[in-house]
Amino acid sequence: MTIDMTCSGSLARPVDAPGTRRGIGVGEMHLDGGFWGARQMTNARATLRHCYDWMERLGWLANFDRVASGSTGDDRPGWQFSDSEVYKLLEAVAWQQGHTPDPAVERIWAQLVDRIAAAQDDDGYLNTCFGHAHQPARYSDLSMGHELYCTGHLLQAAVARVRTHGEDELVRVARRAADHVCREFGANGRPGICGHPEIEVGLVEFGRALGEPTYIEQARLFVERRGRGILAPIALLSPAYFQDDVPVRDADHWRGHAVRALYLAAGALDVATSTGDRELVSAIERQWTSSVERRTYLTGGMGSRHQDEGFGDDWELPSDRAYCETCAGVASVMVSWRLLLATGEAKYADLIERTMYNVVATSPREDGRAFFYANPLHQREPGGDVRLDEVNPRAEGGIRAPWFDVSCCPTNVARTLASWQSCAVFVDESGEDPVVTIAQYAAGAMHVATERGTLAVDVETAYPKEGVVRFLVREAPAGRVGLRLRVPHWADGASIRSHDEAVTSCAPGWIDVVGPVAAGDEIVLDLPVRPRLTWPDLRIDGARGTVAVERGPVVLCLESVDLPDDVSIDGLALSVDSLPTDRGDGAIVHARTVSLPAHGDGRPPFVSARPNPGRGDARHERAFEVPLIPYHRWAERGPSTMRVFLPVA
Amino acid sequence: MTIDMTCSGSLARPVDAPGTRRGIGVGEMHLDGGFWGARQMTNARATLRHCYDWMERLGWLANFDRVASGSTGDDRPGWQFSDSEVYKLLEAVAWQQGHTPDPAVERIWAQLVDRIAAAQDDDGYLNTCFGHAHQPARYSDLSMGHELYCTGHLLQAAVARVRTHGEDELVRVARRAADHVCREFGANGRPGICGHPEIEVGLVEFGRALGEPTYIEQARLFVERRGRGILAPIALLSPAYFQDDVPVRDADHWRGHAVRALYLAAGALDVATSTGDRELVSAIERQWTSSVERRTYLTGGMGSRHQDEGFGDDWELPSDRAYCETCAGVASVMVSWRLLLATGEAKYADLIERTMYNVVATSPREDGRAFFYANPLHQREPGGDVRLDEVNPRAEGGIRAPWFDVSCCPTNVARTLASWQSCAVFVDESGEDPVVTIAQYAAGAMHVATERGTLAVDVETAYPKEGVVRFLVREAPAGRVGLRLRVPHWADGASIRSHDEAVTSCAPGWIDVVGPVAAGDEIVLDLPVRPRLTWPDLRIDGARGTVAVERGPVVLCLESVDLPDDVSIDGLALSVDSLPTDRGDGAIVHARTVSLPAHGDGRPPFVSARPNPGRGDARHERAFEVPLIPYHRWAERGPSTMRVFLPVA
Repeated sequence: MTIDMTCSGSLARPVDAPGTRRGIGVGEMHLDGGFWGARQMTNARATLRHCYDWMERLGWLANFDRVASGSTGDDRPGWQFSDSEVYKLLEAVAWQQGHTPDPAVERIWAQLVDRIAAAQDDDGYLNTCFGHAHQPARYSDLSMGHELYCTGHLLQAAVARVRTHGEDELVRVARRAADHVCREFGANGRPGICGHPEIEVGLVEFGRALGEPTYIEQARLFVERRGRGILAPIALLSPAYFQDDVPVRDADHWRGHAVRALYLAAGALDVATSTGDRELVSAIERQWTSSVERRTYLTGGMGSRHQDEGFGDDWELPSDRAYCETCAGVASVMVSWRLLLATGEAKYADLIERTMYNVVATSPREDGRAFFYANPLHQREPGGDVRLDEVNPRAEGGIRAPWFDVSCCPTNVARTLASWQSCAVFVDESGEDPVVTIAQYAAGAMHVATERGTLAVDVETAYPKEGVVRFLVREAPAGRVGLRLRVPHWADGASIRSHDEAVTSCAPGWIDVVGPVAAGDEIVLDLPVRPRLTWPDLRIDGARGTVAVERGPVVLCLESVDLPDDVSIDGLALSVDSLPTDRGDGAIVHARTVSLPAHGDGRPPFVSARPNPGRGDARHERAFEVPLIPYHRWAERGPSTMRVFLPVA
Repeated sequence: MTIDMTCSGSLARPVDAPGTRRGIGVGEMHLDGGFWGARQMTNARATLRHCYDWMERLGWLANFDRVASGSTGDDRPGWQFSDSEVYKLLEAVAWQQGHTPDPAVERIWAQLVDRIAAAQDDDGYLNTCFGHAHQPARYSDLSMGHELYCTGHLLQAAVARVRTHGEDELVRVARRAADHVCREFGANGRPGICGHPEIEVGLVEFGRALGEPTYIEQARLFVERRGRGILAPIALLSPAYFQDDVPVRDADHWRGHAVRALYLAAGALDVATSTGDRELVSAIERQWTSSVERRTYLTGGMGSRHQDEGFGDDWELPSDRAYCETCAGVASVMVSWRLLLATGEAKYADLIERTMYNVVATSPREDGRAFFYANPLHQREPGGDVRLDEVNPRAEGGIRAPWFDVSCCPTNVARTLASWQSCAVFVDESGEDPVVTIAQYAAGAMHVATERGTLAVDVETAYPKEGVVRFLVREAPAGRVGLRLRVPHWADGASIRSHDEAVTSCAPGWIDVVGPVAAGDEIVLDLPVRPRLTWPDLRIDGARGTVAVERGPVVLCLESVDLPDDVSIDGLALSVDSLPTDRGDGAIVHARTVSLPAHGDGRPPFVSARPNPGRGDARHERAFEVPLIPYHRWAERGPSTMRVFLPVA
């Protein structure tokens, strides 16, 4: 089979599911400064190189050379999944090159791919941790070996490459690797699955990109095999850790390791949309709804347990021990984007926005060279020293680190930022007229191909700092093309003004711009980004008696460096008599000090008394104002403590 | 050096520190039914055999035979610390035989000790996991190998044996093992320490029992070496996990793995009291105060993190993910008992009582054949099925299991229950007259040796179900002997009546019975065990807006099986307008249903609104009464959900 060289702009997208909606290609939208444009540029200029340098320094790249030269030993650096970081970096580079090509980067690409290709075995197997001299045998540890996981990331990188560039050495390497997997794990092969889902998304999309149904069928087999307890147990972890406890289509909610659960959901959706399996789509919708409504943080973060990097029980959403792994945020966006394409429902775009601003944007430091792995909503102790020239052994929060012992997050952030526009806009050509839907707002310029011709729209906005988003139609097809915008769920009081019309208020959800768009049209969407109070569900013990402040799509937080010297993050309560005041991209709130109980009696911190003695002594309370800042920017001013949810006075 | 065969009743105690106070020997008090007597009997009749049978079945005992016969392989069953469970069982058996000897048990003892002795190497090294054919080399993994930890438990078993019986084969085995450790790790040997403290307590007390200062000096070396980062790091764990981050005498609080931290504290105290190191005693007192006041649960449970079985930050005390390992409760009692002997302060006895009733007593099922490992204060999902003929792979709460993959808790409960009386009473002979202090109350009979002669007191009580404790003096020395009782810190309104006197109210703390005691005296202590409301410190996010109910020393809880069918554990709030009503050993409280937010909007469980929408709809609230039961008895009526802290209406 030959590759259909459809690496044109509109196909340069991570997800190409059958159906009425297609996301735009990464080259169909150029970001121009603003919140996401700045981050995408920092990612290109700093993060990609940063990741490359760390992996070279640590020998994770040289692992490929050692396989190629037959010099593997028992001293291999890196975890068993370190190959995947190389592939995630390649995926990020491919997307970035897809919209903003750089010849110098292209040369590095070619060198890196040559090193990888040289490590591939003759039968297509490619892994630097198993199957060579002084290494465990191939597929000898499916539970924790991550071999198929690594291959899945290789395939995702190849998808990005083939769709932005066309076939090259990496695509050929990936094809050989995919063929090997299908031979090894096909219907007549080993009936195994990988402990960490990822091969499924890789196989489906690579199959779609190459027009190779065998790959999609192989992904289907992996999805259907799962949930029947076939993975060898790991001490202290239950089968739910791997989602090997319940078949995917029977599960009611996500559980176990959050990234595993979400990658599996994305892969299952890919299988379902390619095979027309409505039941499987419904199962993932059901799991999404239950898990979002009961197991998801205000930030969109998922995973409340450090122990297994996993989902907790319903309502188990402590702020301090919130794990909210950055990679789970990336994975959640992957799932929601697929559901948005499959269903067209705005709630999926809402969750993508929440997660992008409050998880994905929180991880990287402003300079793109340090990252959060976990994203807690409450930091009780200031983060310790992190040396910028050392690998951080731990994933715990408090301070961004340049690289981790398990360093999945930096490259995941890199590939997400490099392809940010791919989940911002989609086109539906199933109706009488094509409709272009802008689901996420960012300053830039779109040139979106439709069957009627190109719709070019400039977007001018300082969103989310400001709520005004201005759309200037530069070019429109002669035929009718609809333009649809999203009013986020929080935007009560939003309004829209089309070129010649009066301001019209609009409710949350999709809003269609009235009439066909034409060059010269100007549409102005005004979203109320003023600060608002947000209350936790009564069942969340970890947030009872507290309130958070959000501003537009951005969760705010109180950081200790903004407090008066004599007030601690635990020694105040928020006054909710007045609303927070807008300030810059944050807010000013009114708070009171609270008198904290004296101790020294040698008893646990509980007091038997009537009435409740814990309300503080009103005579000693002092009112003061304190600024809240965007959560995604906390810990940029040195070690600090922080809270998102503030006790109510 | 020969053994001073002082295995008389009054020396049959786990701790024999120099100083003015000595605990009684286990044979100086016989429990007679009641709360602790029943549990000690169940322990003797069921738990000891249960542990023995499981360890035989799993091959943990046969591991010794394989070493003895030179047939070790790479298929050794059990974790690297399984030997320690055998030793903890021996310790339990020794204490039990010390107060209630059984010839049949004595025969089993001899057989078991013979098997262990046969596995000892010629130079005294004794471990079934290291140092033999197909095993890693001795001391090749000090961080996680647990070799010295196992030896420590061997020494503790030998202490119990030599003090209740005199020298026997186990004591000789232990002496050879201790001598080996001193040669290997002495001042001129390896400068190593064990990743899991325990050898320290074992060496000091064995040194005291045998009059062997070398052992105490070796323990001192281990304590002083620690905290300087000498243990090889373990992936994803910080040096604080092992308490190898800060020297013991410099630390301000306990941190890292809770059982490790507490065993180390006990061992350091033993070293300090034997060497007269006041600074070190003060350091442990400081750590105790800080950790009890900020890092300890209402139950006395310690360790709020599952991830590393560790202490969390100050105020990090979530109810649902409370780890509160049973073994940490045992270890906390060990530390507090040593501090009580060292200082005489009643607060240590208060914490022992809290921990005994709410952690140690919570672990075993009523029949003594199943155990909790973790002791959370809130169960959100009913415990799953636990098969009584299978090893439970996980330590998570919700249902008691017969045995665990890591099965440290059953034998730790066994040795604690078998020696319960050893931390109930102490004697101080430093003043003009000897003073006998009864720190814990249980039905039974004491015959306590003092330098003036025997004081025999019968204790009649249904405590803690009822608050009356009656002391009947059966025998008193001719000379004066003081009797001192403890009024627990919660007992506001306690009163005492001596033989011929009027009722006198008494404040929490120690209370001296007026005048010398004489045969025929009757003293009645009346402690107010009525239910009371107990409020959490404002800084505990996991308990904000809630209240607990305690009754005497017992923490109560609400279990779902006691709720109306249409009310869930999360769908109610406690009315605090009226106090809980006393009922049996529990309480009746007034609660209201709360209207829980509807969902289905596909958003995380947080609502932006003014005012707070989370208060429920008062029109739909229904008042009802519900019983609370002792926390230590929850989950005995099938799978259920449970809360200790109840939201306040």
